[in-house]
Amino acid sequence: MGTVAVVGTGLIGGSLGLALRRAGLRVQGYDADAARLERALERGAVDAAAGSLLEAYAGADVAFVAVTVSGVADAVTAALDAGVGAVSDVGSVKAPVVRAVEAQAGGAVARFVGGHPMAGSAGEEGIEGADADLFDGAAWVLTPTASTDPAAFTAVRDLVALTGAAVMAIDPDLHDELVATVSHLPHLAASALMHVAADAQPNHETLLRLAAGGFRALTRLSGRSAGIWPDICVENRTAIVDILDRYMKELERVRDLVAAAERAPLLEFFEAARAEGSSLPERSAGAGPLVELVMPVPDRPGVLAEVTTLAGRRGVNIVDLDISHGPTGGVLVMVVPATGADPIVAGLDELGYRTTRRDVG
Amino acid sequence: MGTVAVVGTGLIGGSLGLALRRAGLRVQGYDADAARLERALERGAVDAAAGSLLEAYAGADVAFVAVTVSGVADAVTAALDAGVGAVSDVGSVKAPVVRAVEAQAGGAVARFVGGHPMAGSAGEEGIEGADADLFDGAAWVLTPTASTDPAAFTAVRDLVALTGAAVMAIDPDLHDELVATVSHLPHLAASALMHVAADAQPNHETLLRLAAGGFRALTRLSGRSAGIWPDICVENRTAIVDILDRYMKELERVRDLVAAAERAPLLEFFEAARAEGSSLPERSAGAGPLVELVMPVPDRPGVLAEVTTLAGRRGVNIVDLDISHGPTGGVLVMVVPATGADPIVAGLDELGYRTTRRDVG
Repeated sequence: MGTVAVVGTGLIGGSLGLALRRAGLRVQGYDADAARLERALERGAVDAAAGSLLEAYAGADVAFVAVTVSGVADAVTAALDAGVGAVSDVGSVKAPVVRAVEAQAGGAVARFVGGHPMAGSAGEEGIEGADADLFDGAAWVLTPTASTDPAAFTAVRDLVALTGAAVMAIDPDLHDELVATVSHLPHLAASALMHVAADAQPNHETLLRLAAGGFRALTRLSGRSAGIWPDICVENRTAIVDILDRYMKELERVRDLVAAAERAPLLEFFEAARAEGSSLPERSAGAGPLVELVMPVPDRPGVLAEVTTLAGRRGVNIVDLDISHGPTGGVLVMVVPATGADPIVAGLDELGYRTTRRDVG
Repeated sequence: MGTVAVVGTGLIGGSLGLALRRAGLRVQGYDADAARLERALERGAVDAAAGSLLEAYAGADVAFVAVTVSGVADAVTAALDAGVGAVSDVGSVKAPVVRAVEAQAGGAVARFVGGHPMAGSAGEEGIEGADADLFDGAAWVLTPTASTDPAAFTAVRDLVALTGAAVMAIDPDLHDELVATVSHLPHLAASALMHVAADAQPNHETLLRLAAGGFRALTRLSGRSAGIWPDICVENRTAIVDILDRYMKELERVRDLVAAAERAPLLEFFEAARAEGSSLPERSAGAGPLVELVMPVPDRPGVLAEVTTLAGRRGVNIVDLDISHGPTGGVLVMVVPATGADPIVAGLDELGYRTTRRDVG
């Protein structure tokens, strides 16, 4: 099947290693923390514990960099320099990483595809919490750009699909804006609430004893690895500041409704919030019938990103993808859930792509 | 054992009925919604479905009013007027209810003890979600005041203890202030976040597909029965507006740290939030050795509230309580967890109570 380098063998890297090894791949692991790497080997998350970055990359077809956000660009560039055919990462912020790799690696950035699995452990953190099923049914974002090499994208996508994740292709900047809302804001909102609770002196003990379900859920949320968050906040600060401002404006609005005892608008506020929550799709995104979309594509850069991120913008995951090149251009084959096919075909039509669709059950 | 009236047979009333019947009591139920009352009877949450409020109260030793906040005072007053010996409620806001009952029932308010079980269903709402174990290990606040009759307090406390809940005595105003933080603010914060997410057009579909654990936890929180929240917000508006203001100030502070890319203070912010979350006590409050505190008490009003809410302010639940009256005053016996005994004894000492303590295993 091939050889994969996994750099950083914590929760995400370890889980990825377990999933890929289960699928029959050889995994070469490296971690700057020797004890953690040793533990990954013991847990069966890697086949071999490399003594250095370069040793992990040697002979690897694909490399996944699963270190904290601030270390991603250097480790990715090292993989590209070492000649690995396709390189991805798992960082929570994407645009700064893509730009940093571009600046450091030049044209070789074509072999880099940014990635972000939207999954975390509810239980143990780090390599101890690693689980081959961690990504099953979760969304895994890939962020191809106009300069992304389709072969590199396909190689990364194929491996990610082996984890059971639903692949979503999204523009790096849009990704950062959306995760500011669905991931960074919840963490910040829960953490700020913990500070307010901590200030409840002299009745702090009593307050904690009264903490029921809702407060406990926020506690779990704010209790995740504090160390990774300053990096995330700084890297994605533009989107985060914007979403915090919108959040405070919304809180200000409901505060005024409460102060004025406006029952009817308050009911509307709570009902709209409930409706939004209940519109969440089920986690098992892979279910249901599939459709194969086949389209001739011109041999120019950016086609892959154009087509795949169109699906991402429609909230449609890419179940399978294949690109073949002929003498007069290529053919792109994309498999998507049938429920998402219509909006994509319409969007492709607008972009001038002539698409043939076929149900594939 | 006795007869208990339960008025309002939804999630809380139904669960209470199931728990009390399991303990051998007779439960007379009433609900303005005849279908819900019928369902409570079918589910075994009540022994008899009364045709009216007064029929439910007839012959009852204790009454629990488990209707929405705005209807509590009237139903409580009716129970007092009907001569029920001890009356309690389960509303989320306490001071306005205590004051309303005082205004309506006059001196009979002595037989009313406000209550608030800090438990809710993670699953189904309403009578269908009712569960005899719902309160097991949860905190159940009682709010005695200076005018509370010790016999009424003891009668309510004894029944509540049968549900497996840990009884905490807290001043009504302090209760409202604390639940604004641990219950009302989390709900408002999660709901406001849902509004921000709903506004993420035109990428709303994609945003929902990216929703991972943290966002989903908030979704569950904001998805609870919207209908009860306007009442709660209006009844507890002073405390809620205050806590929202403090929350927005905290968000403003972290927003500025993010905007200025201040890594070190951000790390401090996240670490403090995590520490606060991890200081939450385990839900099983009943565990561990117990201590019996025995103290002579003068025969004057307010002693019960003074002693029991002292425990509540120290975050200590009351495992058992008994008051006996002699010719020269009374003796109050209070059983508390051994871990909480020292601060209570010290506090009682300051108030002039001479306390004898004895380990009771």
